Amino acid sequence: MEKLTLIKVGGKIVEEEDTLRLLLRDFAAIQGYKVLVHGGGRSATQLATRLGVESKMVNGRRVTDAETLRIVTMVYGGLVNKQIVAGLQATGVNALGLTGADMNLIRSDKRPVKEVDYGYVGDVKEVNADLLVSLIRRNIVPVLAPLTHDKQGNMLNTNADTIAGETAKVLAPYFDITLIYCFEKKGVLRDEKDDDSVIPTIDRITFQQYVGEGIIQGGMIPKLENAFEAIDAGVKQVIITQASEIHTNTGTHIQ
Amino acid sequence: MEKLTLIKVGGKIVEEEDTLRLLLRDFAAIQGYKVLVHGGGRSATQLATRLGVESKMVNGRRVTDAETLRIVTMVYGGLVNKQIVAGLQATGVNALGLTGADMNLIRSDKRPVKEVDYGYVGDVKEVNADLLVSLIRRNIVPVLAPLTHDKQGNMLNTNADTIAGETAKVLAPYFDITLIYCFEKKGVLRDEKDDDSVIPTIDRITFQQYVGEGIIQGGMIPKLENAFEAIDAGVKQVIITQASEIHTNTGTHIQ
Repeated sequence: MEKLTLIKVGGKIVEEEDTLRLLLRDFAAIQGYKVLVHGGGRSATQLATRLGVESKMVNGRRVTDAETLRIVTMVYGGLVNKQIVAGLQATGVNALGLTGADMNLIRSDKRPVKEVDYGYVGDVKEVNADLLVSLIRRNIVPVLAPLTHDKQGNMLNTNADTIAGETAKVLAPYFDITLIYCFEKKGVLRDEKDDDSVIPTIDRITFQQYVGEGIIQGGMIPKLENAFEAIDAGVKQVIITQASEIHTNTGTHIQ
Repeated sequence: MEKLTLIKVGGKIVEEEDTLRLLLRDFAAIQGYKVLVHGGGRSATQLATRLGVESKMVNGRRVTDAETLRIVTMVYGGLVNKQIVAGLQATGVNALGLTGADMNLIRSDKRPVKEVDYGYVGDVKEVNADLLVSLIRRNIVPVLAPLTHDKQGNMLNTNADTIAGETAKVLAPYFDITLIYCFEKKGVLRDEKDDDSVIPTIDRITFQQYVGEGIIQGGMIPKLENAFEAIDAGVKQVIITQASEIHTNTGTHIQ
């Protein structure tokens, strides 16, 4: 099968001109088919502040009322997405910016209200691979914004990690996929105070050992569980690394 | 050849919930292949005002400095475009929102500074039909925002009428195209004070007569000249009508 690299980068990297330029250069250098999924939270918070709209976060997720939905639709789907697309086009990468509404790519359900009402936040229900696969095979490079729709006319704010993972899974039958999650650190660290203590590979057995020993803890546990879920769905490997290393094959490899 | 209807609607129609709902219903009812090109100037002006950014217009065109470019990229490429796309998806139309940067669809040059420096405004140089034609044939309905790029990493603010006209021209070899420009009036009026005095058809000969008699004047002259240019490039017909009439085949037909 042909190789495809799917990279998820957070907001910080794509929102600052210097880091964005380096990212686009490194991303352009990756051989084979590729897909980029981006965040944009800092720009959304900045715009909200300028508009006098409060940014309310619960468990690291943005509570998305109607006004905030308009803001993230503008920032993720417009500003950040098109800056990336135009930047990639300048490097000769034939990028196509997409939200989940475009070509009905990703349909979500509005998250049910339990302890928290997250508002217009979507839980992914369906990713439609057909047209995406055709476009990728025509050397189009999809650039996915963290937005989906409910097929009833509403956009929904959706976690970029989830979009990356779910998209990787539906593409797995068609391509030999490497899913790269960019992270502040060089990978999963054996010692969180030592940036050079990257664990090179983790499989299910070593994962359980590291968790038992308290080496892997906190937010890294669900991150790695999601990675194993992608592997189970046929994704070839998942890499957790720094954005500056996407072209070097370093970081933590989950297999 | 198969029929394709390309409709350009201005900002006002797509920016108000009620008129947008009616437009999407009527647009969804149109048979055959279709493309929608939209504006969004009022929302851009509103956002600019809220952000304390002055909206400067010269000859009806927005002077686009760096900050204004960010605003129109957010509003046209994000907010308005995705509201339309999500709305169409809810009616079963498989819409795909695009700017000129996406798939390198429309490349522009930044307008040269003469008497006026319009800033980041693009004059269309090249429309790439290949991928667009493939997508349309797969029943994708492109929804085009009035933004292009310069292939050097910059988005450019671009007139929606121009995008509609240039796109219609490059699609003309592939489809039997009706290009509909939505307008505040029911069509080109014989008497501007009488909304029911719509001229049903205009060809080059009657156009010259109407101009000579002063019946057609002002901004309508370049609008019709653009329409004849599209006809010359192989567009089957151009219709000038009201947004509420896009499915009725009324209005002024230019052939």
